[in-house]
Amino acid sequence: MGEFELINTYFARSAARRDDVALGIGDDCALLVPPTGAQLAVSIDTLVEGVHFLPGSDPALIAERLLGAAVSDLAAMAAEPAWFTLALTLPTADINWLEPFAAALARRAAELNIALVGGDTTRGPLALSVQVHGWVKANEALTRSGAREGDLVLVSGTLGDSRGGLQVQLDSDLSAPSAYLRQRFFRPEPRIALARGLCRYASAAIDLSDGLVSDLGHIARQSGLAARINLEQLPLSAELEAYAGADKARQWALSGGEDFELCLTIAPERLDECQAVAAELQLPLTCVGQMQAGSGVSVFSDGQPWNSSAQGYDHFGEHFGDHIGERR
Amino acid sequence: MGEFELINTYFARSAARRDDVALGIGDDCALLVPPTGAQLAVSIDTLVEGVHFLPGSDPALIAERLLGAAVSDLAAMAAEPAWFTLALTLPTADINWLEPFAAALARRAAELNIALVGGDTTRGPLALSVQVHGWVKANEALTRSGAREGDLVLVSGTLGDSRGGLQVQLDSDLSAPSAYLRQRFFRPEPRIALARGLCRYASAAIDLSDGLVSDLGHIARQSGLAARINLEQLPLSAELEAYAGADKARQWALSGGEDFELCLTIAPERLDECQAVAAELQLPLTCVGQMQAGSGVSVFSDGQPWNSSAQGYDHFGEHFGDHIGERR
Repeated sequence: MGEFELINTYFARSAARRDDVALGIGDDCALLVPPTGAQLAVSIDTLVEGVHFLPGSDPALIAERLLGAAVSDLAAMAAEPAWFTLALTLPTADINWLEPFAAALARRAAELNIALVGGDTTRGPLALSVQVHGWVKANEALTRSGAREGDLVLVSGTLGDSRGGLQVQLDSDLSAPSAYLRQRFFRPEPRIALARGLCRYASAAIDLSDGLVSDLGHIARQSGLAARINLEQLPLSAELEAYAGADKARQWALSGGEDFELCLTIAPERLDECQAVAAELQLPLTCVGQMQAGSGVSVFSDGQPWNSSAQGYDHFGEHFGDHIGERR
Repeated sequence: MGEFELINTYFARSAARRDDVALGIGDDCALLVPPTGAQLAVSIDTLVEGVHFLPGSDPALIAERLLGAAVSDLAAMAAEPAWFTLALTLPTADINWLEPFAAALARRAAELNIALVGGDTTRGPLALSVQVHGWVKANEALTRSGAREGDLVLVSGTLGDSRGGLQVQLDSDLSAPSAYLRQRFFRPEPRIALARGLCRYASAAIDLSDGLVSDLGHIARQSGLAARINLEQLPLSAELEAYAGADKARQWALSGGEDFELCLTIAPERLDECQAVAAELQLPLTCVGQMQAGSGVSVFSDGQPWNSSAQGYDHFGEHFGDHIGERR
């Protein structure tokens, strides 16, 4: 058995059991038992060193970020997490990297109620692909294409924190507010419970991976509408405002990306019910704009069109060197 | 929309439709409709440039190899292919690479009756991860752990050809027999129909990705048995024998890897029925050994133990430079 095959054995030991896993890690395929009458939601995501995280990042933090970001795609469909697979490409079978990575992955998987059921480990430049599998009743799935004219645009949590957390790393800032922002970068919290609670009210949803302007643009395009964002309504954390100032914080809230909060559209008359769901979960849910006839996403400040070059995630590239471009 | 996001749109255009795909490429997740009463078989595989294929390889050939190798894991479980996702990491969004890659992927997917339902495209060193999804009735799934003492060891097709096809590339050999071997390297043919036909007879199965000794070792270990291979029974293609000579051909048949033929164990009294299935499919099915009490895999030649250092895929590393080690 080769060094890299041993790694798979290693992950097998830390894989949590679920009743719906007939056969887990260690055969050619995992065998999984679907619940009756549900649709299978699947999504695959890749993180590459130097593109999605800085070289030398703590492997435990990479594990948490990887799984949180992937499960967030299930939240965007209002699906319940079930299983995931991991394709891990590593320069060397370094146990000092693998041990904390696998431990953090197992811990985070247990918190998210998702089981590792298979994987592939290869030698090569550090990159990680995760495929997540979840379940959703057909009539409860949220997509990007269901928004209607006049719907309100809601976002969960606060925006721009993850971009702040990146800046904290680039600046090697170890001050107190930076700990919160770093955590927001490395430990995305998929909004599964919120999505499950709102799926009966929402007309469309997406998770914020590329930035609000870019991601809301997907809802607008796929729903055949325009979207308007009101700059002053963007929810900002006190930590981000203290770290970056209000102007930069708002720009990052628009285009920073990787916040993995939910963006949903709802009919105005459902706002109170949605706020009740969010209050129950003790999670901010903020109206930041509205869907309109037309196309594209426009930003308004104090009721006036706001001129911005904010283009989703493209800003990211500046900081990671010239071999790194868009991350989509 | 960034350059890399456009790639996903590109793949979406070439994705085949299946009735069991409720929502394909273009949302946060794909939504898929499971058949009633079946188990979901999933497997993820990664190919890395310089590890699994030579730098500069034809993208169309990479696509065929990627999908064939991944679907072969479904064959090993006797599962029917249904859907796949693709995580593609590329140094640049080069249309001259992407166009033939996507076209070949779509063509091969149609042949294998598997639909692309999602993906992620990222900038980075060239690497490709594919997750395949298939369906199998619970009582028909083949695993590695069911072999019994006295079972015969069968393999489909001929062995060692893929290793020969690698050598042909390393030697830049463009002669006639080399075309067959190159094809065997780049175009694995998943033995789905054979697996479906044999699933009622076979006690265990694996697909040959790491080499017969190594892969049969998994069956032996997971079944709590030993396995014996008879060197003279190994099925070799005329092309491989002509290219490499009988001795090297047999060594590659034992340990070359990447043939993606099936290795199955069956009770001796089912041999005729299994041969009838294979004959119907016009596919060679050859008895190469037997399962025994004990542990490990031993090779016999003319009835005598054969001393070999064959250890699965480890030979591969020699040819690809010292940054490349085991591929498991």
